[in-house]
Amino acid sequence: MKFILEADKVKNIIRQTYLADGKRRENDAEHSWHLALMAVLLKEYAPEEVDLSKVIPMVLIHDLVEIDAGDTYAYDEAGAATKAERETKAADRIFGLLPSDQGKWFRELWEEFEAYQTPEAKYAHMLDNSQPLFLNDASEGKSWAEHQVKKSQIYKRNAKTGEGAPAIWEYMQTLIQKHIDEGHIIDDGKEEKEF
Amino acid sequence: MKFILEADKVKNIIRQTYLADGKRRENDAEHSWHLALMAVLLKEYAPEEVDLSKVIPMVLIHDLVEIDAGDTYAYDEAGAATKAERETKAADRIFGLLPSDQGKWFRELWEEFEAYQTPEAKYAHMLDNSQPLFLNDASEGKSWAEHQVKKSQIYKRNAKTGEGAPAIWEYMQTLIQKHIDEGHIIDDGKEEKEF
Repeated sequence: MKFILEADKVKNIIRQTYLADGKRRENDAEHSWHLALMAVLLKEYAPEEVDLSKVIPMVLIHDLVEIDAGDTYAYDEAGAATKAERETKAADRIFGLLPSDQGKWFRELWEEFEAYQTPEAKYAHMLDNSQPLFLNDASEGKSWAEHQVKKSQIYKRNAKTGEGAPAIWEYMQTLIQKHIDEGHIIDDGKEEKEF
Repeated sequence: MKFILEADKVKNIIRQTYLADGKRRENDAEHSWHLALMAVLLKEYAPEEVDLSKVIPMVLIHDLVEIDAGDTYAYDEAGAATKAERETKAADRIFGLLPSDQGKWFRELWEEFEAYQTPEAKYAHMLDNSQPLFLNDASEGKSWAEHQVKKSQIYKRNAKTGEGAPAIWEYMQTLIQKHIDEGHIIDDGKEEKEF
């Protein structure tokens, strides 16, 4: 019960991405719900078999550490420097509220997600990177324009997205190009694919 | 993609229940995320084996029909009369946005939830009924007091909750009694268990 009520706080962690209607920013609980729904629907696009009984809890809990550590915007480089330490400390406390078997399992799923190596982690990251891009597209690039996001930053963040679902990454690139053409994303000429 | 973006609208369907901190009401996406998380954590309390690969999509989508039909408050008797018709029409449209195999599967899961017969549907309803009760408890019965909810209404709504998880229903009853004692729920002396 302590964990279930503590987790409620993630509904107040506001992200930079706007809802599809552009009216307000979404929060981590809404984002995680959307990823879980997409996990079910897009499974066939993963290049390897993925185990949804791991992917779904992984995406449901992947942002809980932000209850303590806050949301670090994808393109905030100063925040990124201290992110890992802040989030590890948060994981200790938050997953520590659970009975030890469940706490250990969630902690391992979160670490697997962060390590970005298994098919499940790659698929989960593809969801985590594509969902805000789809919302950004629907809301006319509002969040990209506000933060003056550059093409190179998006490609850097998505360096491994294609490993989670090649066809979806292809589709994402057509959306990125569309928003470069529309002036919502700054074209700095670099894809930084080698990153 | 049409379905994924349409589903985004459920983030704007506001429920009557307040978040645990009592500061604002929660929406359907947040509620559904919380149910999916609880589905993973509380499985051992189901009296029969439940298949989470059915329960989780079921709770993720159970409120999507409210995009068209709106949220009918648990204790709104006038709204309840037309709820089924409004929701069936909504299901036709919303699940109809998906490729036919996925649309059929989600539609069947939603109908299974509504029919309230299988172990998965009973477990999902237990989650759907206990989560707002836990939030109501955390927010000092705010939503119950606002709507002058009676004990008999809560028992009527929860007539089958014990079938989804007997021990959790026992615990819920201790919370109901606590909020009767505190004056947040009206004690009208009837449990209507026979309903």
